[in-house]
Amino acid sequence: MHATVQPAVVGATGYTGAELTRLLIKHPHCRTPLLLHDREDGAAGDFAELYPQSAGSARALSIERFAWDRLRDSGTDVLFLCTPHEVSRRLAPEAVERGYRVVDLSGAWRLKNAANRAVYAFADANPVAASLLDASAAYGIPELNAPEIAGARLVANAGCYATSVILALAAWIDGGLLELEHGVICDAKSGVSGAGKQPTARTHFVEVSGNLSAYNVFGHRHAGEMREQLGLDDGQLQFTPHLLPIPRGILATIYVRAKDGTRATDLAACLREFYARASFLRVHGSARLPEIRFSLHTNYCDVGFAMEPDGPRVVLVSCLDNLVKGAAGQAVQNMNVMLGFDQTEGLL
Amino acid sequence: MHATVQPAVVGATGYTGAELTRLLIKHPHCRTPLLLHDREDGAAGDFAELYPQSAGSARALSIERFAWDRLRDSGTDVLFLCTPHEVSRRLAPEAVERGYRVVDLSGAWRLKNAANRAVYAFADANPVAASLLDASAAYGIPELNAPEIAGARLVANAGCYATSVILALAAWIDGGLLELEHGVICDAKSGVSGAGKQPTARTHFVEVSGNLSAYNVFGHRHAGEMREQLGLDDGQLQFTPHLLPIPRGILATIYVRAKDGTRATDLAACLREFYARASFLRVHGSARLPEIRFSLHTNYCDVGFAMEPDGPRVVLVSCLDNLVKGAAGQAVQNMNVMLGFDQTEGLL
Amino acid sequence: MHATVQPAVVGATGYTGAELTRLLIKHPHCRTPLLLHDREDGAAGDFAELYPQSAGSARALSIERFAWDRLRDSGTDVLFLCTPHEVSRRLAPEAVERGYRVVDLSGAWRLKNAANRAVYAFADANPVAASLLDASAAYGIPELNAPEIAGARLVANAGCYATSVILALAAWIDGGLLELEHGVICDAKSGVSGAGKQPTARTHFVEVSGNLSAYNVFGHRHAGEMREQLGLDDGQLQFTPHLLPIPRGILATIYVRAKDGTRATDLAACLREFYARASFLRVHGSARLPEIRFSLHTNYCDVGFAMEPDGPRVVLVSCLDNLVKGAAGQAVQNMNVMLGFDQTEGLL
Amino acid sequence: MHATVQPAVVGATGYTGAELTRLLIKHPHCRTPLLLHDREDGAAGDFAELYPQSAGSARALSIERFAWDRLRDSGTDVLFLCTPHEVSRRLAPEAVERGYRVVDLSGAWRLKNAANRAVYAFADANPVAASLLDASAAYGIPELNAPEIAGARLVANAGCYATSVILALAAWIDGGLLELEHGVICDAKSGVSGAGKQPTARTHFVEVSGNLSAYNVFGHRHAGEMREQLGLDDGQLQFTPHLLPIPRGILATIYVRAKDGTRATDLAACLREFYARASFLRVHGSARLPEIRFSLHTNYCDVGFAMEPDGPRVVLVSCLDNLVKGAAGQAVQNMNVMLGFDQTEGLL
Repeated sequence: MHATVQPAVVGATGYTGAELTRLLIKHPHCRTPLLLHDREDGAAGDFAELYPQSAGSARALSIERFAWDRLRDSGTDVLFLCTPHEVSRRLAPEAVERGYRVVDLSGAWRLKNAANRAVYAFADANPVAASLLDASAAYGIPELNAPEIAGARLVANAGCYATSVILALAAWIDGGLLELEHGVICDAKSGVSGAGKQPTARTHFVEVSGNLSAYNVFGHRHAGEMREQLGLDDGQLQFTPHLLPIPRGILATIYVRAKDGTRATDLAACLREFYARASFLRVHGSARLPEIRFSLHTNYCDVGFAMEPDGPRVVLVSCLDNLVKGAAGQAVQNMNVMLGFDQTEGLL
Repeated sequence: MHATVQPAVVGATGYTGAELTRLLIKHPHCRTPLLLHDREDGAAGDFAELYPQSAGSARALSIERFAWDRLRDSGTDVLFLCTPHEVSRRLAPEAVERGYRVVDLSGAWRLKNAANRAVYAFADANPVAASLLDASAAYGIPELNAPEIAGARLVANAGCYATSVILALAAWIDGGLLELEHGVICDAKSGVSGAGKQPTARTHFVEVSGNLSAYNVFGHRHAGEMREQLGLDDGQLQFTPHLLPIPRGILATIYVRAKDGTRATDLAACLREFYARASFLRVHGSARLPEIRFSLHTNYCDVGFAMEPDGPRVVLVSCLDNLVKGAAGQAVQNMNVMLGFDQTEGLL
Repeated sequence: MHATVQPAVVGATGYTGAELTRLLIKHPHCRTPLLLHDREDGAAGDFAELYPQSAGSARALSIERFAWDRLRDSGTDVLFLCTPHEVSRRLAPEAVERGYRVVDLSGAWRLKNAANRAVYAFADANPVAASLLDASAAYGIPELNAPEIAGARLVANAGCYATSVILALAAWIDGGLLELEHGVICDAKSGVSGAGKQPTARTHFVEVSGNLSAYNVFGHRHAGEMREQLGLDDGQLQFTPHLLPIPRGILATIYVRAKDGTRATDLAACLREFYARASFLRVHGSARLPEIRFSLHTNYCDVGFAMEPDGPRVVLVSCLDNLVKGAAGQAVQNMNVMLGFDQTEGLL
Repeated sequence: MHATVQPAVVGATGYTGAELTRLLIKHPHCRTPLLLHDREDGAAGDFAELYPQSAGSARALSIERFAWDRLRDSGTDVLFLCTPHEVSRRLAPEAVERGYRVVDLSGAWRLKNAANRAVYAFADANPVAASLLDASAAYGIPELNAPEIAGARLVANAGCYATSVILALAAWIDGGLLELEHGVICDAKSGVSGAGKQPTARTHFVEVSGNLSAYNVFGHRHAGEMREQLGLDDGQLQFTPHLLPIPRGILATIYVRAKDGTRATDLAACLREFYARASFLRVHGSARLPEIRFSLHTNYCDVGFAMEPDGPRVVLVSCLDNLVKGAAGQAVQNMNVMLGFDQTEGLL
């Protein structure tokens, strides 16, 4: 029997923070989460007012202004940052210094390579501390990185697109089954919650409904995560995101070439073996490629593929819910690993 | 053969203004419309950049800052105001004074009754001029009000909800077929473009998608138009709007009681006779009630009804496209009437 | 500590049956459900193949052909019928005779009044047995009918529309606060899963998307349930359903008149008191009427209302998820009551 | 001034046939189209009943059973086949023999290469006649093939996906700007009307809504058209279609490599020159890639691209409305070319 822990969530008002709050409320080893916001103009509020669907189970949860004292007084064990990149960049070093275990859901701490990180243009108050943390932060995909996560003070929860692509490719790259020099093309499509809760022209219902658009071609920040984690260079991995007229879910269609002599059965066997003990990776048979709806409201990443009859071309499909396995669910999974709980606690 | 006229559109960047621009471009009696905006922060821009779907047919159309001189120099004959209520309230009196025929698509000039108008809280610079114009403005539903529109300097284009309800009820009320004391209930549902192009929490794709909500219960401003035009008092007409997860279209379900002895055939005959010469009112048989898709991208209002076997209860259904018959299409129809063109010019 | 029970589901391939299966799998007092189908042409199959989203948690669940022997051998305690009306009409009497507790999710056993039942045109093999069961079946809304449900052999799970309307109105009618002679109008809107899984022209994506339509005006079968349970006659309650372009969810907008002297605070107090011990009824304050998304994927019915300033008109809004509180969730809740479990078991 | 011609449409009840009918009704050089169906079980019907949105403009149009006599008596000049592949395969040879100009919108006559055609498994009654027609049929993309179309008896209207991909790639391949040996990858996404009007599990609203799925990977029949028209072999072009939760529209994301030394300005210039006289091809600047909504309800194909800073990788995006430029609009455009009208007649 595990003792319970006290989680705190900074940024509980956004889509990711709210999904995380819902998961933590049901987590068997968590006490009621402390909800915080870090916006000058943010009023303290009631979580159930912001997310009426959660009323009943969360009637009494209020969202308070962030303060270190409040965190200390609450006996917080683990701190989730669902904050903008810059805010995470500011809060995480101090949180770690104060002894909290931290799971950051922003893009602040995911990139090890300074050149990749440059696109974020972080302006750190204490560059030395930030740099140390850049080096020690664990990249948060537990299927691939559990030992490092277990020992980390700060886990950088992986990006939603990045999770879908990395989990799909990791097994075959690790197994040396792909002709990587030819280049890997990732054509990904995401629901609108991935763009956040802030109303913009791009997220207006009338603009999105009935539409599809590609964006950030050759320039999406998640591509850096993919390359770093998969050990590919820029020329080897190309990533194009699209905005889908659905509220949530990601499907990535990934174009690769298998090495000479590799058969579909080899590819399938490699995937199944690599993920044999992974609780949230479902490998689908070639009869039915994964679809977005398979993974919605679950912490699963669904992976399947089709190979042309005599090879070498392979189409790999990967689906997940960007708010769960792509964000809040994976954050809980990371917490489970950090604190020694079973990875699936609170997620099935 | 009619000579051509020069239209100008103030507020061409919104949904209504853009739809109007598209209609005017194709109008056989209109020269290329002059496009204007009245926003301090609004940059002059290219219409096709804002609405790329119109590129090709409108490649050269730029949107300029509003100025009376520009209007005069362009030889404008008819001025369409697709502006916020307050802006219309400010521009219309001067436009009329300068001799322009004006069609206003806002709610600024629709209400004759000062008590109804009070909900808008207009702050007129020149209350006397405004008051005179309040009295002389024609309410713009050409099926019901063509003679007045033909002679008007200012036409107040009817509200989208108001058009759907008024057109559905006018025939039976005029024919004395309804038991009005029992009360008329209008339960209406509208697509999101009715809420305008400004991004808000309410129009965010994730909030609207998969949802339905009632709003402004007992307090929607279009209810005043309905009561004034149909000659009903507050107790006789009740209106509830809902926000539908679709980009455009309105369906109003209207609950009435027929007077004793009135049969379904009487109701049908009344509708068909009343609208016998109306080009944009389609009366549907009881076998198939109108649906929103019937009227999309058209200037039609589709009306049909079901009566319970022995009466007196009747469910009346009315559909239209809020951007066409509920706004821009009706504005063109009003212009046609004002300028002596056939009502259908540019609208079929 | 309760012993576990063995549930069986006939018709697990439909939307309702699948949702029920998902709930039963997670129910703390239920063993893995036995899944059955009753279609001549139905092949035994794998539940996770039909509903890939459930793979992982339900990998081993197969759907077998219905047979009484299979039921007996499995040690089934409670039988859920997610079958067409006629099949439920055939299976339920024998199931009850064989000693099973039965929850029927079809419309077969909901109506007490033979005249109302006539619209279904049931052709019973044994009319006497059917008639006895018609009389003894409990109407399955636990908030209103728990004692009868607790003792029943057969529970007729309430219709989705009926649940939304009955729960909204029951408190005020019970409290004598409404002027019922004026007539109650229920304008309801439902997502497409309410129309079932069978592909038809009406459920084709292209026909539904971007559309709204009223249907079965003055003729929907759920109206009979509403009248019987609320004690209203045909003239007192009018019901109009609409098909929404969303996968799931119901919103009912209900028009009533309060009796003279009744204030909004009286109405609110009545609702809160009536449902003070109801686990799945959320009464919302007038500041924010319920929306469909509040209740999705939950077993809650959300109720709220607006009253005009001086009365007597009231707009009552009720929302639920047609597959959960409107079907599978309520079926589990009914089972909980029948078997003496807490009503919320497996539903929070 | 052109004399008017008499068009006939076989298969006017489907989505493509209905869209075509709407276009022909408005075509300045066409008499009211003769509408026919070729289904044993098809009842003659009223077009406006099937497509109520067209009532008013098409009130009197009935759909009759197909018969050669009816065709002859009507004075038909041009025959549009919106029929299943097999029916087109049967009707086209006889129609050509009888002297009609034919535009076939099915896949029956698009493929020149017998090996590609094999996937359709046509069973021709007169293989010799069919083979001759296979050879003489013109592939119907007027931007690329106008002279051949002008002289053809039978035009095989190009597939919707094929049109989007071929138009996007033709200029650069013609100009020799691409490194084709590396392989071209076409990741395309289509709305549901592309799957036809027949209700199936795949087109059920609940299955499509909120979802995205890849299908026919390595096996879609339009890939053959693309390869034949672009002169690529199987290894050079790879095509993956996806089903989008929208009613209409296609977006193709195409991955290519430019030859050494090719700059973005070269690519842009090539596109603009190649399509300088094309009325329905809009080349977009790199500042804004085309989106599906740009092309909806128009006959435009919108093309744009992004190139990585130093090349050679290019992402090419192509959008069109699958029912207009991908089917009915292009069919009218083909007719215009065949009969010597301006390509844009009836299409702007």
